[in-house]
Amino acid sequence: MASLDDPGVRELLEQPNHGVISTLNADGSIHSAVLWVGLGHGTVLVNSAVGRLWPTNLDRDPRLSLLVAESGNAYHYVEIRGTATGTRDGADEHINVLSKKYIGQDEYPFRAPGEERIMYVITPAHVRYVKQ
Amino acid sequence: MASLDDPGVRELLEQPNHGVISTLNADGSIHSAVLWVGLGHGTVLVNSAVGRLWPTNLDRDPRLSLLVAESGNAYHYVEIRGTATGTRDGADEHINVLSKKYIGQDEYPFRAPGEERIMYVITPAHVRYVKQ
Repeated sequence: MASLDDPGVRELLEQPNHGVISTLNADGSIHSAVLWVGLGHGTVLVNSAVGRLWPTNLDRDPRLSLLVAESGNAYHYVEIRGTATGTRDGADEHINVLSKKYIGQDEYPFRAPGEERIMYVITPAHVRYVKQ
Repeated sequence: MASLDDPGVRELLEQPNHGVISTLNADGSIHSAVLWVGLGHGTVLVNSAVGRLWPTNLDRDPRLSLLVAESGNAYHYVEIRGTATGTRDGADEHINVLSKKYIGQDEYPFRAPGEERIMYVITPAHVRYVKQ
């Protein structure tokens, strides 16, 4: 099994490559969405607004798969299977970190009025690294 | 809800954009992988080798999510949730069609000795189109 500390995996996660997060809907079907991905707390962090589908799914069932592929080279990717725990602590600062990483702006510009951010800390159970 | 016939969705699926397929492992966790995606039979077709994880998962539980994002513009994507049925009929011809689409080669060059191809025909239950 690969690890988050492997250089190839780390590079994929450090660069502004987008991720696809997959979570379980209430009926057991799978929901997938594109998102920004960060490193921190010694693991992978993702961020959303309270009430959206994937964070709601994670709050009910913490299992997820997160796939991050190199932009322009889709068969170079990491799949991280595991669980995630949500926290609002640091979520506002963290979305600004992701904004800086992905769009070069110090402050996340897409916040909706009244939006509450939530950050999920991923505990990897299985890391699969593919480079073809 | 969007449809496979919507022009934006169709364009995403006609171009050689890679997909991320998510299926359910035996323990209920989610597996995600990158793959080629085709149109045919009036729907979306994907192709694998018998015995790999995602086709094995689909044979046990046909539910999937397939996300196809525009290459270089990840926040332009379609998520297709539904079920898939596998068939070996036409699977060998179909992997060549995908080879032509994605790498410009009339014959799929990565076949392993003894490999049996299988094609999955997707029945969409929910189509979500995102263009940000």
